[in-house]
Amino acid sequence: MASNPISRLTLQRLPTYLSYLKNLPEGSPPNISAAVIAAGLGLGEVQVRKDLASVSNAGRPKFGYSVLELVKDLEHFLGYGIYHRAVLVGVGNLGLALLSYPGFMDYGLHIVAAFDVNRALIGSTVDQRPILPAEALSGYCRESGIQIGVLTVPAAAAQSCCDALVSGGVRAIWNFAPVHLQVPPGVLVQRENMASSLALLSYHLKTQNGSPEKSD
Amino acid sequence: MASNPISRLTLQRLPTYLSYLKNLPEGSPPNISAAVIAAGLGLGEVQVRKDLASVSNAGRPKFGYSVLELVKDLEHFLGYGIYHRAVLVGVGNLGLALLSYPGFMDYGLHIVAAFDVNRALIGSTVDQRPILPAEALSGYCRESGIQIGVLTVPAAAAQSCCDALVSGGVRAIWNFAPVHLQVPPGVLVQRENMASSLALLSYHLKTQNGSPEKSD
Repeated sequence: MASNPISRLTLQRLPTYLSYLKNLPEGSPPNISAAVIAAGLGLGEVQVRKDLASVSNAGRPKFGYSVLELVKDLEHFLGYGIYHRAVLVGVGNLGLALLSYPGFMDYGLHIVAAFDVNRALIGSTVDQRPILPAEALSGYCRESGIQIGVLTVPAAAAQSCCDALVSGGVRAIWNFAPVHLQVPPGVLVQRENMASSLALLSYHLKTQNGSPEKSD
Repeated sequence: MASNPISRLTLQRLPTYLSYLKNLPEGSPPNISAAVIAAGLGLGEVQVRKDLASVSNAGRPKFGYSVLELVKDLEHFLGYGIYHRAVLVGVGNLGLALLSYPGFMDYGLHIVAAFDVNRALIGSTVDQRPILPAEALSGYCRESGIQIGVLTVPAAAAQSCCDALVSGGVRAIWNFAPVHLQVPPGVLVQRENMASSLALLSYHLKTQNGSPEKSD
């Protein structure tokens, strides 16, 4: 368990290693080499060694990594099993989709309440989480010790909702709104931009139609 | 509109510019400078000029960019208004959420059918899109000229579903499964990794608790 600072890119790859290791076929050997992991994930072997060295001592020369130990170290490092209390702001289509998705619990995200400005929604629940009025956001976060805010509001409302989260003590914001948010130091905004992914896919199709990509 | 190749990073930023410009407050001036865009999005001014030069000639020294022209050029470049026929594979919680989300149409993604192995789902519809048996995937893609495949299956099923898409002629795959997919040249896989985003947020909270980040 190295305690050196870890790069953002390494950190982003760690869940991929974890998922790969947990999805190895039944009956796989108890040890695995960096070369096998690298080939499975389409990464360089040096990269894999470096990434894993920053979170685990489970690797042994000639034997590779103990899969069990490596999984344990990755989970520990990523804080899996530790739940962060979160709120979701903006119960539109995307907000409702995320609110209804149980998979986030696997990654420690526990959404305990949602907020909206729409009076027709307020007072109802989604899978036992209440939908509360937006003006209660800041106070609720402070009283309930909320750590993560998930923002699924329209672009125009994002900064003011972000401000309410921050003034309620939230220091980590997962932003699905297509805007850059201004936050004080110490608050992390992680932007999720599905439009960017779709732009890459569309552009690939466009350039393929015009001038097919060459291989090699 | 420049026809030079565009970098992946520039391409990923283009939807952000577009969204920013479309969300300017009512009554904003018809022109905007690179400096204002840069400040609004938290980017460097040189970066903004370079990015926009690759898709538009709407910038004039001293006048800045015509907002209307720039929006038009960005939409044209990104192919907005052109719909790509897509299928979704794997109607679990995430798949159902994505299938129910109407926002993708804004970005040209038109999901026309979904596929699953679960007999209980097959034959039903989600917002008028049929859920079809997985074994029909490849043939359906070929007959319907499907261009994009959205993969929301478990990790263990992802490669075989990907292979079926590719053999059905699909050249762009949006992969939500936590695995690296092997594809032939000419096929683009765009991986969406929400677990990575959550890892960054969790790690930020962990390091903040242990040793608060310094702000200048």
